[in-house]
Amino acid sequence: MSAATSPTKIILDVDTGVDDTIALLYAALHPAVELVGACGVWGNVEVEQATRNTLHALAMAGRPEIPVASGAAGPLTGGPAHYGHFVHGDDGQGNVGDTSFRAPVAPVPAAELIVSLAREHPGEIELVAVGPMTNVAVALGLCPELPSLLRGVTIMGGAAFAPGNRTAVAEANIWHDPEAGRAVFAADWDLTVVPLDVTMRTLLTEAHRQRLLAAGGIANYVGRILDFYFDYFAAEAFGERSSCMHDVLAVAVAAGVLEPTLAPTVHATVDDSEGPGRGQTIFDLRGCYQGYPEQEGARCRVVLECDTAFAEPVVDLLCAAGPSRIEEPTRA
Amino acid sequence: MSAATSPTKIILDVDTGVDDTIALLYAALHPAVELVGACGVWGNVEVEQATRNTLHALAMAGRPEIPVASGAAGPLTGGPAHYGHFVHGDDGQGNVGDTSFRAPVAPVPAAELIVSLAREHPGEIELVAVGPMTNVAVALGLCPELPSLLRGVTIMGGAAFAPGNRTAVAEANIWHDPEAGRAVFAADWDLTVVPLDVTMRTLLTEAHRQRLLAAGGIANYVGRILDFYFDYFAAEAFGERSSCMHDVLAVAVAAGVLEPTLAPTVHATVDDSEGPGRGQTIFDLRGCYQGYPEQEGARCRVVLECDTAFAEPVVDLLCAAGPSRIEEPTRA
Repeated sequence: MSAATSPTKIILDVDTGVDDTIALLYAALHPAVELVGACGVWGNVEVEQATRNTLHALAMAGRPEIPVASGAAGPLTGGPAHYGHFVHGDDGQGNVGDTSFRAPVAPVPAAELIVSLAREHPGEIELVAVGPMTNVAVALGLCPELPSLLRGVTIMGGAAFAPGNRTAVAEANIWHDPEAGRAVFAADWDLTVVPLDVTMRTLLTEAHRQRLLAAGGIANYVGRILDFYFDYFAAEAFGERSSCMHDVLAVAVAAGVLEPTLAPTVHATVDDSEGPGRGQTIFDLRGCYQGYPEQEGARCRVVLECDTAFAEPVVDLLCAAGPSRIEEPTRA
Repeated sequence: MSAATSPTKIILDVDTGVDDTIALLYAALHPAVELVGACGVWGNVEVEQATRNTLHALAMAGRPEIPVASGAAGPLTGGPAHYGHFVHGDDGQGNVGDTSFRAPVAPVPAAELIVSLAREHPGEIELVAVGPMTNVAVALGLCPELPSLLRGVTIMGGAAFAPGNRTAVAEANIWHDPEAGRAVFAADWDLTVVPLDVTMRTLLTEAHRQRLLAAGGIANYVGRILDFYFDYFAAEAFGERSSCMHDVLAVAVAAGVLEPTLAPTVHATVDDSEGPGRGQTIFDLRGCYQGYPEQEGARCRVVLECDTAFAEPVVDLLCAAGPSRIEEPTRA
């Protein structure tokens, strides 16, 4: 991953809530990333809202030319869709989003966009999926040779040593669609997993939020959507106003900007049983007592530790992003 | 748990392999424990061998009067029994046990002994189970009011943040009989769980083993049976000769000798699905980010941290135990 030489081509698959918006802005603005496309998926919010929020983030960043496709509206097996409105607000933007914003969606479904971009840049693209794995599983079904067309796949999802956030053991992205998750973990590609182990330890604080608000423009928008998100984390996780940055970590790891300090490559799967472990990611970490000896045939790199001060450069980037490039009339 | 005032009445349910032998000797010899009975169960070895090894340990310690009953020969549901001979040796004593030893077994099955002792000492006994939970589940079936007759239940088993040792997520005692484990976790009693999180961090070293060998008598026997056990841990876990002490930790925690330094009381269950998480213990540790706030109705205290230098006093006790009280003719 040579971020120093040429930017990493990334497709970002997002269920755009609050942290996804930061991930999108980061991917659109950071010089180490060449964002070649984005896909909306259900999850934090309905797929239509996720796609609209995705278009909005890229328009704010002045990147309306990046194709954004809309994807799956619910889990692979046709089961009910459970959303994360209680975390991200009804609009996925902390209830302060720009409800009047509209922009054109790509004329193909998300899975088709993934496949066509992969064919266009064979072996070059890192597919970064930070919502439920439904679009990625559909793309695999559509194009069984997809693994050979991508550089690899990086996901924000799962929990290794850390507890879950949707059940005691299941992280929300995987819990939302365990069957899709299992397909993604079983596919023949290099998979990098950025789980709660690092995302729950890499936080934005109220001081960061105040810096964002004061910087104006895009940063101000991010500071405003974080307000609701901070309330959730105060009540449900940390006991004080702050938040994870979940999804942007996956983008930064995929682009080689954030180098994991501990990330063994291990055998892994997803529990898609109907038991109490449903939605759990299962990594074989039994080698922890002797520095994770190599596991033959393992393809899953799980990020267990990274620089937890990563919020600083993210806030810096957003504060330097300047004004939103969306025309005034479309703003709320 | 006032170890200082009067000893804790304990029934020890054991699938006597190497570490179980240490737990039995500790329970028989430590002044904070009043061992009122022991039960053999299948697991590390066949139930007959486990019961014989249990009788042998208590005879060595000069406590042949403690009743020892024999219990379940396989899992609750009638599925196949998988043993741990590769860890504990064919005889559960590192292949250096006293094959000629015989002693009388209690005339009732293990579950009946548990129930009758509980009735005899209502509210006083801590049932300490350090093998598969089969005997305990059968005792619950035999006597639904058992929870009201015991002080509580302490088990060695499961894994919280730590990986499993039989699968990536399942610890051997629970994995051997997940249905029994689920029953034990669901019962209406105070359950203390001593999982791999602490037992994999509390080790006997080769220096300890040499001290045991040099001390003669009972200590020497323990030093000898540990040889095979050390080989297993060198190959499979630690990369050097040493071992866990698993089961004795549960006895010491139950007796109040080893005070956990972190042991939240949380909701917990066992995964008895047929999925990849089968045999996993699931603890709700989502409160870890804010010091484990109280969980209403939770009855399971899970020991996450304790003094990892606990091997010292165990080795001291064994070295002070003197000669085996078994008559010479019965020794190998």
